Amino acid sequence: MAMVCLSDFEAYAKKYLPKIVWDYFAAGADDCTTRDENILAYKRIRFRPRMLRDVSVMDIRTKILGSEISFPVGIAPTGFHQLAWPDGEKSTARAARAMGTCYIASTYSTCTLEEIAAAAPGSLRWFQLYIHRNRAASQQLVQRAEAMGFQGLVLTADLPYTGKRRDDVRNGFRLPPHMKVKNLERAFEVCKMSLLDPSVTWNDIYWLQSLTRLPIIIKGILTREDAELAVRHGVQGIIVSNHGGRQLDEGPATIDALAEVVEAVRGRVEVYVDGGIRKGSDVLKALALGAKCVFIGRPALWGLAYKGEEGLQDVLRILQDEFRLSMALAGCARVSEIGQHLIQFSKL
Amino acid sequence: MAMVCLSDFEAYAKKYLPKIVWDYFAAGADDCTTRDENILAYKRIRFRPRMLRDVSVMDIRTKILGSEISFPVGIAPTGFHQLAWPDGEKSTARAARAMGTCYIASTYSTCTLEEIAAAAPGSLRWFQLYIHRNRAASQQLVQRAEAMGFQGLVLTADLPYTGKRRDDVRNGFRLPPHMKVKNLERAFEVCKMSLLDPSVTWNDIYWLQSLTRLPIIIKGILTREDAELAVRHGVQGIIVSNHGGRQLDEGPATIDALAEVVEAVRGRVEVYVDGGIRKGSDVLKALALGAKCVFIGRPALWGLAYKGEEGLQDVLRILQDEFRLSMALAGCARVSEIGQHLIQFSKL
Amino acid sequence: MAMVCLSDFEAYAKKYLPKIVWDYFAAGADDCTTRDENILAYKRIRFRPRMLRDVSVMDIRTKILGSEISFPVGIAPTGFHQLAWPDGEKSTARAARAMGTCYIASTYSTCTLEEIAAAAPGSLRWFQLYIHRNRAASQQLVQRAEAMGFQGLVLTADLPYTGKRRDDVRNGFRLPPHMKVKNLERAFEVCKMSLLDPSVTWNDIYWLQSLTRLPIIIKGILTREDAELAVRHGVQGIIVSNHGGRQLDEGPATIDALAEVVEAVRGRVEVYVDGGIRKGSDVLKALALGAKCVFIGRPALWGLAYKGEEGLQDVLRILQDEFRLSMALAGCARVSEIGQHLIQFSKL
Amino acid sequence: MAMVCLSDFEAYAKKYLPKIVWDYFAAGADDCTTRDENILAYKRIRFRPRMLRDVSVMDIRTKILGSEISFPVGIAPTGFHQLAWPDGEKSTARAARAMGTCYIASTYSTCTLEEIAAAAPGSLRWFQLYIHRNRAASQQLVQRAEAMGFQGLVLTADLPYTGKRRDDVRNGFRLPPHMKVKNLERAFEVCKMSLLDPSVTWNDIYWLQSLTRLPIIIKGILTREDAELAVRHGVQGIIVSNHGGRQLDEGPATIDALAEVVEAVRGRVEVYVDGGIRKGSDVLKALALGAKCVFIGRPALWGLAYKGEEGLQDVLRILQDEFRLSMALAGCARVSEIGQHLIQFSKL
Repeated sequence: MAMVCLSDFEAYAKKYLPKIVWDYFAAGADDCTTRDENILAYKRIRFRPRMLRDVSVMDIRTKILGSEISFPVGIAPTGFHQLAWPDGEKSTARAARAMGTCYIASTYSTCTLEEIAAAAPGSLRWFQLYIHRNRAASQQLVQRAEAMGFQGLVLTADLPYTGKRRDDVRNGFRLPPHMKVKNLERAFEVCKMSLLDPSVTWNDIYWLQSLTRLPIIIKGILTREDAELAVRHGVQGIIVSNHGGRQLDEGPATIDALAEVVEAVRGRVEVYVDGGIRKGSDVLKALALGAKCVFIGRPALWGLAYKGEEGLQDVLRILQDEFRLSMALAGCARVSEIGQHLIQFSKL
Repeated sequence: MAMVCLSDFEAYAKKYLPKIVWDYFAAGADDCTTRDENILAYKRIRFRPRMLRDVSVMDIRTKILGSEISFPVGIAPTGFHQLAWPDGEKSTARAARAMGTCYIASTYSTCTLEEIAAAAPGSLRWFQLYIHRNRAASQQLVQRAEAMGFQGLVLTADLPYTGKRRDDVRNGFRLPPHMKVKNLERAFEVCKMSLLDPSVTWNDIYWLQSLTRLPIIIKGILTREDAELAVRHGVQGIIVSNHGGRQLDEGPATIDALAEVVEAVRGRVEVYVDGGIRKGSDVLKALALGAKCVFIGRPALWGLAYKGEEGLQDVLRILQDEFRLSMALAGCARVSEIGQHLIQFSKL
Repeated sequence: MAMVCLSDFEAYAKKYLPKIVWDYFAAGADDCTTRDENILAYKRIRFRPRMLRDVSVMDIRTKILGSEISFPVGIAPTGFHQLAWPDGEKSTARAARAMGTCYIASTYSTCTLEEIAAAAPGSLRWFQLYIHRNRAASQQLVQRAEAMGFQGLVLTADLPYTGKRRDDVRNGFRLPPHMKVKNLERAFEVCKMSLLDPSVTWNDIYWLQSLTRLPIIIKGILTREDAELAVRHGVQGIIVSNHGGRQLDEGPATIDALAEVVEAVRGRVEVYVDGGIRKGSDVLKALALGAKCVFIGRPALWGLAYKGEEGLQDVLRILQDEFRLSMALAGCARVSEIGQHLIQFSKL
Repeated sequence: MAMVCLSDFEAYAKKYLPKIVWDYFAAGADDCTTRDENILAYKRIRFRPRMLRDVSVMDIRTKILGSEISFPVGIAPTGFHQLAWPDGEKSTARAARAMGTCYIASTYSTCTLEEIAAAAPGSLRWFQLYIHRNRAASQQLVQRAEAMGFQGLVLTADLPYTGKRRDDVRNGFRLPPHMKVKNLERAFEVCKMSLLDPSVTWNDIYWLQSLTRLPIIIKGILTREDAELAVRHGVQGIIVSNHGGRQLDEGPATIDALAEVVEAVRGRVEVYVDGGIRKGSDVLKALALGAKCVFIGRPALWGLAYKGEEGLQDVLRILQDEFRLSMALAGCARVSEIGQHLIQFSKL
């Protein structure tokens, strides 16, 4: 089976992963409307491609928070990579480094952040965290991440409680006994989502800032109001995200929310987006609408499920090639040439 | 089979109820366009969820006409509950009481209103009525309801004649001989819909008010003009309803009509809505658009069909949990924080 | 099989008519987009029903060109009724009379207009005609129709050439040898569509007026410009029609064109509509948008195919009952109460 | 099997061509969204047909760049006709001449342009070219085309790199060894797309003009900005095209882009369109929106696959008949009567 596009990896993962694992990765909240809308919303956007521009030398590099990446696609934080591939997040980190891009490691990794750092020394890595009821535990994680050379902290804002994912309830999903949420082992005897603190507010950003010199990126913003609050509270970046449609169902598709957030932010901080990226041209659309970079979630897991580090590199390479080609066919030779002039919203 | 969401109960009821009963409960008028639109219209509405609000203590209680209910979901009036469960409306009344919410008992119950009252003493109950050609019969029902402690009268306005439900015509639906429309036994020798009076007008509200001190809620309003008339005629509440799509087909979905009615009413009376509620987030949408409370019809019958009183409690508990979670994920800790700012109509 | 709604008759006809005949009746031009749009466009229109109006006494009679009909549904001109039922147009005429409505007999009938007149003496009938290259033949038809007591002349304007109906081409459709286009037998040796005159213009209306004192109704108008021309040329009525989607494919659905024509006409002549009527509520929509009456084409043929005169009466009676019920449920007791206030175009 | 409409030829070709060839002709880029939108966009456009105009004498001829064609449908440049029929482009040229229309021969023909010219002497032919890295090769092609009597040069602007057509990648599509891209044999040892020059800009139009007196038509324009640039750089014509959806996926359907280009051009040069033409009424829509002529790509290949020259004539004759009939049914007797007044964009 030739792996030509990302849906080939999806089909592979669906076929070869245990059903309970596939269901967990694929799950959306409730009716999965938002999960599916993330993809459909991209399809409703039309390009306005320009012709006869010199695209003989293509430069698809960009920078996020000052660090160069080889193309504007990073790895979004998702949990439990060992469910997809034995080496888990260590493979993910290696693939991201090999492809010259950024990996956001999740708190809910099945490797420790120290293992992840050791697997891909010198690479660009951010660390994703929740704020726990036990603030000392969160503080410890922040300090370990900073010590291990992670270069950004991604605070997930959209999970005061876990969304209702019907298949996971039906399947009684839980980590198999031989896997652990290792980052939290030292801090808690038992890892439970309910250890997350639903009383977190914007003021906790200040507390977080007091713990670290790392830039803080807030993940899960979908409205102009919250984008404005994020900027005012001094974050360095915003990831427009709906947690892959796994939290509140029937919120907006992320690509639809992006323009609103970008407009509110007015360039004061960087804006990124995740959710629904399946083709290089989706990346081009996100950048044209103002994103500095996109992050992929499920496609990275499919790549891992296919062939671990190598499979994830395949996924990234396909996106890279497709992105470069879309740029050229739209008439852009450099990322800086991408802009809203490339976009025409579909009448449908 | 795990009962995870309301459609699980629907599937159960469809599988285990006699076809003629399922068809009767499921029936919509003509092409069933409005019945189905009630559901589809909710799916077209998008949330604008807010992040990093303190949702650690959730309070989902509300009040309708001054009475507190544990969450803003009541039981809409539907007929013939014995078709779903032997104890019929007595089970319904008990489940509503157990869950701390309001039950609107139908004139077309298979238990008397006295039996219903006795089954759940002290609970919040309203009584639904039609105006009969024989006004004395209606008067008697009003007085019995008031005597039995029902706390509101719900006048159904959208049934001067019964809608055309093709499956019921094909099936020759009628109540089995061992069931009776008991509320009407004393008043009529034979129960026929045609005993309803199609000459009823707004002035009959005054007549109804002259019979009782109970608040009057009018059910079946879909336009601003009728909402204004309802307020002027002194009703205490309006239920935006299209009778579950069983009367005039191709009228508006209730959630689409709600905003228009709420705007016309300008807070002078309470507005409720029924039709198409299938998830906790639907409740949140209805409240965000101005409803004080929603009422469920068919899902209550599915719950009864599953396990009687207990099954209906399951249905209500799922809605309650889903509603609480949706609120939290949208950034609201109290019902009073829900508002139109949470809503963005989908471009689709 | 209970005949509950018009699609039951459609299913019957599809099952029992010879395929070539079914295909001929069902045919639309090219991709059949307009044929299907005629129906879909009705489904996109939403009612704004009004409550608590006295609908105890329903009056659904109306008048067209001064003649009373029992309800606002007539029979549109369609050809070759013997293909559906041995007695052909004689049965159609009898059914229309029995139901107290108007029948527009087609030039392309398999009975002569004299036979049709004799089958239902005293009934309201109009005669549909084309203008032939041989004007004497058209003149003769006009004079026979007037002599036989037809009370209106319906000039079809949308068939300078016959539309391309793929199935008819594939099937090689032609009348079986034992049937004849009897109205034309005297005038032509062979009946061919190509005898129709594609050079006809608005001035030919004057010529037609010079031949007869009958009112002239023009059929096939879809734009405000042509509606204005029709009024200026002195016609008495306009039938908004696209020939059942059998002529130019991808023109407008008739119910979508109706409002434009009604607005242009400003009450100077009566406006009718055909195409896509399948339920009583469709009739209500057409009247709410300004039609004085609707005409049914294919459903009449399905009725004939079911049981001849009796079957067509069944079809008309169902439409009558559904129309009366829709009116009542929308809050109208008389046809004169129907108006644009009942309509809300769907957001979809 | 009767060949009644173009989809009959499509079905034939799909059934009888080798899968790899069918896939190559059918291929669209990525998800094939734009390929399919080209067709769907036509279906969303509604006519406003006019009645009672004299359409007894129909004249469907038009002129492109001063040359008369028998009806406004030409043959778009597509590659590798020998894959469809042994005689390849020679058959195409003969069919176009027989039908009195224009054939745009592709650089990627399997016959030389000399063979094509010899096959249909005296016919209206344009030559399509890319600009190669080796400019001398392009220059030679231009000069050969001019010498062989081609009357226009069509510069394809939308292929700096080849689009990603997944099926071709999966199938490993390449020309079978016994076929050659003959036009390029003299210039290159090996024919590779990568010989195309992705550094081409608008200034290269001037270089092309310096080589030839032939009019230059630019193909692949989709925006008003590029249309303006094309006019300013002195081209004689613009083909609104997205390369059949084979280059950048999720750009606009060509019929949707046409109006924008026509408006920008303001009559200064002729505008044509290709992509998605499947019926005579599509041609009428394109002309109503301002195209001077349309070009068909895949349908021509289906015609060749059916019966070579004769099959392509069948395809063209069907389009011609359908176009003439649509015009007449819309009320136009001459091409000059076609205009934007015939069009109403669908509410869908």
